[in-house]
Amino acid sequence: MRGVVMHGPGDVRVEDREKPTITRPTDAVIKLAATCICGSDLWPYRGADSVDATPMGHEYVGVVEEIGADVKNLKVGDFVVGSFMASDNTCEICQAGYQSRCVHVVPMGRYGTQAEYALIPHADGTLVATPGQPDADLIPALLAASDVLGTGWFAAVAAEAGPGKTVAVVGDGAVGLLGILAAKQLGAERIIAMSRHADRQELARRFGATDIVEERGDEGVAKIKELTNGLGAHSTIEAVGTQESMMQAIRSTRAGGHVGYVGVSHDVALPGDELFFSGVHLHGGPAPVRRFLPELIQLIWDREIDPGVVFDLTLPLEDAAEGYKAMDERRATKVLLTV
Amino acid sequence: MRGVVMHGPGDVRVEDREKPTITRPTDAVIKLAATCICGSDLWPYRGADSVDATPMGHEYVGVVEEIGADVKNLKVGDFVVGSFMASDNTCEICQAGYQSRCVHVVPMGRYGTQAEYALIPHADGTLVATPGQPDADLIPALLAASDVLGTGWFAAVAAEAGPGKTVAVVGDGAVGLLGILAAKQLGAERIIAMSRHADRQELARRFGATDIVEERGDEGVAKIKELTNGLGAHSTIEAVGTQESMMQAIRSTRAGGHVGYVGVSHDVALPGDELFFSGVHLHGGPAPVRRFLPELIQLIWDREIDPGVVFDLTLPLEDAAEGYKAMDERRATKVLLTV
Repeated sequence: MRGVVMHGPGDVRVEDREKPTITRPTDAVIKLAATCICGSDLWPYRGADSVDATPMGHEYVGVVEEIGADVKNLKVGDFVVGSFMASDNTCEICQAGYQSRCVHVVPMGRYGTQAEYALIPHADGTLVATPGQPDADLIPALLAASDVLGTGWFAAVAAEAGPGKTVAVVGDGAVGLLGILAAKQLGAERIIAMSRHADRQELARRFGATDIVEERGDEGVAKIKELTNGLGAHSTIEAVGTQESMMQAIRSTRAGGHVGYVGVSHDVALPGDELFFSGVHLHGGPAPVRRFLPELIQLIWDREIDPGVVFDLTLPLEDAAEGYKAMDERRATKVLLTV
Repeated sequence: MRGVVMHGPGDVRVEDREKPTITRPTDAVIKLAATCICGSDLWPYRGADSVDATPMGHEYVGVVEEIGADVKNLKVGDFVVGSFMASDNTCEICQAGYQSRCVHVVPMGRYGTQAEYALIPHADGTLVATPGQPDADLIPALLAASDVLGTGWFAAVAAEAGPGKTVAVVGDGAVGLLGILAAKQLGAERIIAMSRHADRQELARRFGATDIVEERGDEGVAKIKELTNGLGAHSTIEAVGTQESMMQAIRSTRAGGHVGYVGVSHDVALPGDELFFSGVHLHGGPAPVRRFLPELIQLIWDREIDPGVVFDLTLPLEDAAEGYKAMDERRATKVLLTV
């Protein structure tokens, strides 16, 4: 089969790889319908993480091709969506809703889903079947559920977005934008998007943002305070992962409010005294996307949400290298690869 | 009147101070029945914070002596308990239960309650009257409610201690011990006290601890994991405030679990990546004791809890200097001063 392999920084190739086969009775093999490039795939692309002929990709939707003997919840031919973390969905941690930290968790990046086929461990726990074969126009939205929508949704839940709440969103990438969509769905009264890019502001408004703040850092915080009687937001979504964005999120939140952070933390050190006196709730980490998949799939199936619009470039799998380049050069927010 | 004044590190004197009088229509003046020395009073005593003829103390119970024209909820003669933060209890932040961050908050340390009388700003919002004049043996418990019990209680609530939960407690000072009492009252199934002092272990068990862990740091974390199927506690109370204790608390908690931290943060910097991948909820800060006072007073009044036993030395106000010395030398956990 054909699959994406990264050989070094900036060196992405589509090559012949061995088609995966069932190795454990709980495995499934799926034939990909679509996959995509994640912001996190840019770290090795830019040399921040090391790679050595590494198969790439951890987002996926497709059709079940083969199942192991112990797989009970799925059958060959089902159209399925899974998360970037394979989980058994039965352990105590999964049952508490933290499938991304399952005691038997398997990061899907290990299997490289930017390919024609992918092996899915813990298939019964990981994959959720759609109600039927989806119309082609639903595939981008279902693919978004696999990571960026699920992550934005978790951020909004962690920030306790809901009725009567003012939600601030730090970060206008795919996850931040879908955090806005999630906050809206969860019933937030007011959603303040922090963004200085016209195209992303437009998408933010389309997803439910009521206000836009272009300022960053202390000026951004001052603006949020100005919009909230000097108190700060009830809920803040952090979807960047830098020191500046984390402090901006904490400082934008009122005492007793909630910060949901999903930007993968890079060189962040939170000052204990400031955190202490902020009085905020802080929760985040790798999103337990599996917790939300049944609900998200239904919302997409019923065409109540369309997270698929975050994909602003679609390419065939064979052109993956161009997709990486476009994201690296910020010509695209999020690239879908058709298979 | 007589009152405690600190002139410099180690220099505590009881002196004649001017008796406070009403200056705003929302003030009250109370005649202290008892006051006490806080662990935080040791910072200036040890030279970590500066002082300059500073009146000391922020914990208090007593009888209302005089009220301003706008005070409606109290009358002269009421026996009252208040928190270390005066709050109006009407602003949006107070109404959300974060009275320690009231938009009009006044730290009571400014008024020095280690004295015969004390001025209480925002009297209607700050003070809670007991159902009647308390028996003398209830006074230590009511005084504990003013700070250490309320703080331990908040930590247990922030850690979401409750039925079916395993709660770990880092710190065996008065606040940590009362966090154990709170977790027990909130219905926790199992409470693991981290303590290496026999006398405090005994009090921990009396308050509801089911297990004692003597190890600290990584060894302490390993022990907590061992007691919880390798997962960590559902809820962890942090009542110290150092880098080691914060990391011990975070690492002792399972993914999706809750850390309630109330140890005033000193030189703490939380590594963002570790916090991110821990998947815990983090909440704490200066405890909104006022939120819990009505409930805590009732529990004490009904003799369902006795937090007063954390006072292991009682001295007359005139001997305050000896009280500071005993706490500084760790001969006493918590000193009550009779007035």
